[in-house]
Amino acid sequence: MRMLFIGFGVGVAVGAGGCYLYLSAVKQPELRRGGRAITLDENHHALKFGAPETEIVRQYEGYIAAYDYRTRNPKWVLEHITRDSSSGDAKRDGSEFFPDPGVEPRFSAKLSDFRGSGYDRGHMAPAADFKSSQKAMDETFSLVNISPQVGAGFNRDYWARFERFVKELTYASSDVYVMTGPLWLPTRSQLEDEDGGGGGGGGKGKGGKWTLVHDWIGKPPGLVAVPTHYYKVVVADPRGGGEPGKAPARDAVSPLAKGAVAVGAFVMPNQPMDARSPLSAYVVPLEDLEQVAGTRFFPDLLGEPRRRAALDTAAAGWRQEGLAQLKPFERLSMKQALAALPAPGSGAADVETSTVSTAKGASSSSSSPSRPAPPPAPKTPEGAGVVHICDVNACQLPRVDWYLPNGSGAGNGGSGGKRRAAA
Amino acid sequence: MRMLFIGFGVGVAVGAGGCYLYLSAVKQPELRRGGRAITLDENHHALKFGAPETEIVRQYEGYIAAYDYRTRNPKWVLEHITRDSSSGDAKRDGSEFFPDPGVEPRFSAKLSDFRGSGYDRGHMAPAADFKSSQKAMDETFSLVNISPQVGAGFNRDYWARFERFVKELTYASSDVYVMTGPLWLPTRSQLEDEDGGGGGGGGKGKGGKWTLVHDWIGKPPGLVAVPTHYYKVVVADPRGGGEPGKAPARDAVSPLAKGAVAVGAFVMPNQPMDARSPLSAYVVPLEDLEQVAGTRFFPDLLGEPRRRAALDTAAAGWRQEGLAQLKPFERLSMKQALAALPAPGSGAADVETSTVSTAKGASSSSSSPSRPAPPPAPKTPEGAGVVHICDVNACQLPRVDWYLPNGSGAGNGGSGGKRRAAA
Repeated sequence: MRMLFIGFGVGVAVGAGGCYLYLSAVKQPELRRGGRAITLDENHHALKFGAPETEIVRQYEGYIAAYDYRTRNPKWVLEHITRDSSSGDAKRDGSEFFPDPGVEPRFSAKLSDFRGSGYDRGHMAPAADFKSSQKAMDETFSLVNISPQVGAGFNRDYWARFERFVKELTYASSDVYVMTGPLWLPTRSQLEDEDGGGGGGGGKGKGGKWTLVHDWIGKPPGLVAVPTHYYKVVVADPRGGGEPGKAPARDAVSPLAKGAVAVGAFVMPNQPMDARSPLSAYVVPLEDLEQVAGTRFFPDLLGEPRRRAALDTAAAGWRQEGLAQLKPFERLSMKQALAALPAPGSGAADVETSTVSTAKGASSSSSSPSRPAPPPAPKTPEGAGVVHICDVNACQLPRVDWYLPNGSGAGNGGSGGKRRAAA
Repeated sequence: MRMLFIGFGVGVAVGAGGCYLYLSAVKQPELRRGGRAITLDENHHALKFGAPETEIVRQYEGYIAAYDYRTRNPKWVLEHITRDSSSGDAKRDGSEFFPDPGVEPRFSAKLSDFRGSGYDRGHMAPAADFKSSQKAMDETFSLVNISPQVGAGFNRDYWARFERFVKELTYASSDVYVMTGPLWLPTRSQLEDEDGGGGGGGGKGKGGKWTLVHDWIGKPPGLVAVPTHYYKVVVADPRGGGEPGKAPARDAVSPLAKGAVAVGAFVMPNQPMDARSPLSAYVVPLEDLEQVAGTRFFPDLLGEPRRRAALDTAAAGWRQEGLAQLKPFERLSMKQALAALPAPGSGAADVETSTVSTAKGASSSSSSPSRPAPPPAPKTPEGAGVVHICDVNACQLPRVDWYLPNGSGAGNGGSGGKRRAAA
């Protein structure tokens, strides 16, 4: 029996020691920032007085946000919603915007920065996505989830309809994952001035140089950057089983193909938008968006180049179809606003391609925002295991009056709460 | 004996299991980004397809750099140099700029982005800081350490002298830590146009709105942002012992007070600078710089507000002294370039204060870049355990011709290598 105890004691020591050595060797201090691990060797001699800090990640019931200390904006906000989590009785009437307690005040936007700025406190993860939990809804009012958005014509209108469009994906899919974030996109000057060259300044290429111009609000040195654009990347995953809800009564909505995950990426300018613009005109290729946002999206799903390529082929087709529905002047101003994310071919003439017959058909009724469209052909090449979201629902936005009790597709959001998202 | 084996076996299992459970409970996956740990709960339901990635940290022999995927610029570069590490025979003649193998090409600047752009490939951690090791010097040519800098009048001139100034701190101190990084600072429009208010756009406050304008180089969608300014935060730590080298023969340089760590923060515009401008005019308060850079510097040293406050009191004094030496027009354009980092009081008239008598004395010889100045009075309040770097060496830049064999303070850098940093 004494032997048993001795053996046990030695065994504990060996086991614990071995485990510790193993874990110490394997588990180096790592910064896991996505698919790839970033190893920061804390013993590097330059780190004597600590490593710099430039952002913070905050986690809430419904979403995760990375908050950037320089722009005082969310860097990205990632949410996961289901039909259950986005349905319920939670009300935003009592929700109050609040500076996040996890962010040092000197690195955070302040409530006062927005007052009188002319901009809305725009949600990245929308409050209405979390109607099942008052706590989760209240948490979307943290300033780590807020960015200065143009109100009339954008946050309170086109963007709100777009948010509703995303929420309605839970009708066709068990799980919906959404990345939302700000962008600062430069535009290209049309000046063709040649610069002999030599020292200093310039930065000109053929066809004019790229320049970014954007406003800041608040007071120095703690100013808050106003984004020029916003993006959303949407993943609708039907594989979670359960009973998907009834799709809203719009013509082009079809259930997701069995087992196929649907993905879409969209970019919109932070300015008043024409309610009649088709959503498909704002479809962008994932590859281009990742490059201008400087962000890898959903690395475990979209890290595979072949999958991204299939989706981007579809995105190019949908975007051309959307652009073809715009009037020439709208198409031109849109080309300028999204110059850093050039459409395939990118000349205005390029929309006259293979997709044009479909596009022309659709554009014949383009003056009505809620026109019934013929179901367009899917555009995602088969075999990649993913489809573009527009293949599923034709990227049809809800009607402009969807939030009214009599609007079509009002679902459980008919209280007009979304409309007040502008607050 | 059989009992011993059984006991040992059970013991190993218990020990290893217990160790594993302990480590699992205690060692949550953490993002250590400086003084504060950011816990990312990898089990959060929104992370099903992985966490987004927006930057990467790269470590080299002499420096650590965080590289930002959106601006395709270093976010910060942190180096630690000593007199030994910065002296030696390493040559930059064979060093070649290279895209960092740790950064995905689509998120990195390319060599071709700089060609014909009109901008230098400017080092953040200077090659000349690592003359003791050819490997360490070569590593500074990674693009994670490079940002587009104006060449003539800046990277090849004033900024190069400033880099030399920093390197010479190793003469007075055993260890020098340097943070260098880009800034994008907005300026304030002078338009006082009142906007009735209401929907959309605007962002105006009293005295005009804040707007950022800057260029980008390269090709979309992978453009490279051109910073409007650069900063350096310098920590000179004399506590490492050893024999500090002889200080260069300039009047105002005094050895560091025993045990006191010297700290300074500087911001310069990415444009040609007047060689006669005193370095002290570019001294900025740490607090303001941290806020516009969105970065906590040296958190384990400067995290204490009292220490920062003492340094910032000194910084205000030195900056006023520097500004007083500028001609009125220079002072005005500098005020505009650094509007987001307002000088204390900030009106041009405010330089007429208590420091003016010293300043006036110094400015009488301001036309010569290498004028001998009377040793100015220290400005850091006592008791905080730190002093401002200008208290130590009066923030006297090396002569414009320091790199020539006959230049004063040429030290071991007389080969003109720095001059070619412009490449």
